[in-house]
Amino acid sequence: MMRIDIISAVPDSLFGFLNTSILKRAQDKGLTEIIVHNLRDYAKDKHRQIDDKPFGGAAGMLLKPEPFFDCIESLKAQRNYDKIIFMSPKGKIFNQNYAKELSLDKNLIMIAGHYKGIDERVKERFVTDEISIGNFVLSGGEIPALVVIDSVVRLLPGVLNDSDSALTDSFIDGDYVEAPNYTRPAEYKGMRVPEVLLTGNPKLIREWQEEQSKKLTEKWKKINSLE
Amino acid sequence: MMRIDIISAVPDSLFGFLNTSILKRAQDKGLTEIIVHNLRDYAKDKHRQIDDKPFGGAAGMLLKPEPFFDCIESLKAQRNYDKIIFMSPKGKIFNQNYAKELSLDKNLIMIAGHYKGIDERVKERFVTDEISIGNFVLSGGEIPALVVIDSVVRLLPGVLNDSDSALTDSFIDGDYVEAPNYTRPAEYKGMRVPEVLLTGNPKLIREWQEEQSKKLTEKWKKINSLE
Repeated sequence: MMRIDIISAVPDSLFGFLNTSILKRAQDKGLTEIIVHNLRDYAKDKHRQIDDKPFGGAAGMLLKPEPFFDCIESLKAQRNYDKIIFMSPKGKIFNQNYAKELSLDKNLIMIAGHYKGIDERVKERFVTDEISIGNFVLSGGEIPALVVIDSVVRLLPGVLNDSDSALTDSFIDGDYVEAPNYTRPAEYKGMRVPEVLLTGNPKLIREWQEEQSKKLTEKWKKINSLE
Repeated sequence: MMRIDIISAVPDSLFGFLNTSILKRAQDKGLTEIIVHNLRDYAKDKHRQIDDKPFGGAAGMLLKPEPFFDCIESLKAQRNYDKIIFMSPKGKIFNQNYAKELSLDKNLIMIAGHYKGIDERVKERFVTDEISIGNFVLSGGEIPALVVIDSVVRLLPGVLNDSDSALTDSFIDGDYVEAPNYTRPAEYKGMRVPEVLLTGNPKLIREWQEEQSKKLTEKWKKINSLE
């Protein structure tokens, strides 16, 4: 079983996702345990303050080191963690291979700081992996943490049933776009499913899908300027 | 005011984020209105079925066209939409410039299909933008839709206060990594804030930050193999 501890200053934002769909099923089946820690619970001063001004005169507030140290040290005292991940636009950009690598771990801590900043000493002392999900600015690390968690938990043996996994395999390598898919009705509002898909001829269907797939993959690479 | 309509088969997953942090504040201030539509509410048959088997014999289930058509047509009858966005691993990879572009729109529809598929006719008829957030496999378009919404809503005038925006500016162009940040205490568990930040000398601090920033930006580019 994979255990994932998430440290967040806005824990309420996370429960919707953690309690629906595949993440819920994976937890219900006992294949993963996902625990959310409210950073504020580890603030010791009387105002339960978790942020403070940065040294050096920059504007904005930073997350203070102490609550993170207390939370992470208490977790580390209970078990060994394979990785302590900080979600950050400064990190390595996440991809499916990274997800596969993380899916082999047993215990992960995910730090969902706010992107305005976190005291660097938290990273110096604890963080093994700094992960970015892409080149855009978000309000916090919570959505990025869910991206990583969803993609990793899907890879744990037993989480997906055959039906879930069938159509996603095509994206596993990240450079193959599958053919368009259609379901009933065969004609809807004047739009007809391509005839070949209605023939029931597996060879013709396969050929059409491969041709479409090749075209779409080329188009996708062009749009995203990959070679 | 920007209006965003999200169409989802798992609407409950979204409310946590929509009701916390900057997205909540933007809605409370009347700067954006975010409406979640449950795809199942638009399923007309007696079982309220939203998925069906794909033509051509592939495994897995696809989201049917009718509920999407009914939902989107009803929305389009009420107002003009600038863009109808489908979140998909086949799309253009999202970045900060794309977020800026979307932040100029007034009305957006976001379709959070499930990645196992959606009937192609929904895309043919309605979709103007197909957006991917990166090269990884997720269970659905909900988390990607929130990535887009969070990054776009942050850019709407009046949403961020000075303190929020100050430290994120550095990522707006996506190719600059800011210097490490530290807050009190100056010494914590044997880890001391770099002396220069405690000097109160703006010139020295600025030089140190620029030097650090240059180093970290190089490192970031190297890790992500950008030239």
